[in-house]
Amino acid sequence: MKIAFVLYDGVTLLDFAGAYDPLTRLKTMGFVPDLQYCTCARQERVRSFEGMELAVDMVSPDLAGFDYVIVPGGNSIANLIRDREFTGWLAISPNKTTVAAICGGALLVGAAGMLRTRRATTNPALMEILKKFAHEVSKDRVVDDDHVITAGGVTAAIDMGLYLTEKLAGRDARLAIQKQMDYPYYPESSVPVPGKPRSP
Amino acid sequence: MKIAFVLYDGVTLLDFAGAYDPLTRLKTMGFVPDLQYCTCARQERVRSFEGMELAVDMVSPDLAGFDYVIVPGGNSIANLIRDREFTGWLAISPNKTTVAAICGGALLVGAAGMLRTRRATTNPALMEILKKFAHEVSKDRVVDDDHVITAGGVTAAIDMGLYLTEKLAGRDARLAIQKQMDYPYYPESSVPVPGKPRSP
Repeated sequence: MKIAFVLYDGVTLLDFAGAYDPLTRLKTMGFVPDLQYCTCARQERVRSFEGMELAVDMVSPDLAGFDYVIVPGGNSIANLIRDREFTGWLAISPNKTTVAAICGGALLVGAAGMLRTRRATTNPALMEILKKFAHEVSKDRVVDDDHVITAGGVTAAIDMGLYLTEKLAGRDARLAIQKQMDYPYYPESSVPVPGKPRSP
Repeated sequence: MKIAFVLYDGVTLLDFAGAYDPLTRLKTMGFVPDLQYCTCARQERVRSFEGMELAVDMVSPDLAGFDYVIVPGGNSIANLIRDREFTGWLAISPNKTTVAAICGGALLVGAAGMLRTRRATTNPALMEILKKFAHEVSKDRVVDDDHVITAGGVTAAIDMGLYLTEKLAGRDARLAIQKQMDYPYYPESSVPVPGKPRSP
């Protein structure tokens, strides 16, 4: 099980950290001991939207080599959705690999062509732009449609991260991680249940 | 208005990022245009609990020079509470400076002697240890007692960060930042209202 977290200049730190925390707990709390995870970018260091400098584990790896690719949002997405090199890097075939995007990350995944046939969500402030890229737009907190998962704005990263822990290691693992994170808010009603078809 | 975020090897990234996001939005969204913020540690680079390498803005500054000092938790706190150099660095007089700690950060602030006369909270899993340091222990999500603020576990960083945005820039600013963060969960019932005495 290999997870890549995509970073770039202008990334919103909490979009990333909100998913990184529950997913890495799959390993640190022993639920998926063989989990491998790394951060990836097109350069060795990135600076977040807020100004935090982060060292990156892998430069421009082939993302198709991972089971999950996590794509946070950021204040540079308006430029990145027009950056063919960047969207080309992201544009893997979501089949063996599942892509999970948070907030404006959904627009990056959309610009890479991965939402043309899919339902998706994003930050409420970006819904109109998402309509250009997605087959169907949803107001759910987390949407999982055929190997592409999307989440609402910034803090929805936590709900999506927890959803993924449930998908990868089961409900008990999700509940234990949620407890360790002291997070009483997981919104069962607007996050899918792994393995169950979405109710209409 | 100057805010320092304390980092160290083993820090939990989300403890930090959960407070960093709303507080830095005070500046990026224009509510406190003259806000200055920086990350601080005893060395130039730190590695988070999860393995993320972070570059630090200032090495060992005098923390009494800041208006707010934010102290996240991490998996290295068991060692740090016995590290006199570290607790000595944190042990400023909370008067001109307000200290705000998240999760295990409350134990660090406690080991620095700042909770002896105060009410405080922490991660539910750490409550028994907090009793050694604090005058009174609370299960509230955020506690504000005489220039020392404490929050529950990991994700309570977000609630504490939002509380501080309200304290520094008013309720409308907090609501606008909360909306931008797409965070529907702010727990009014277990977070104090700035300027109002705590109900018994």
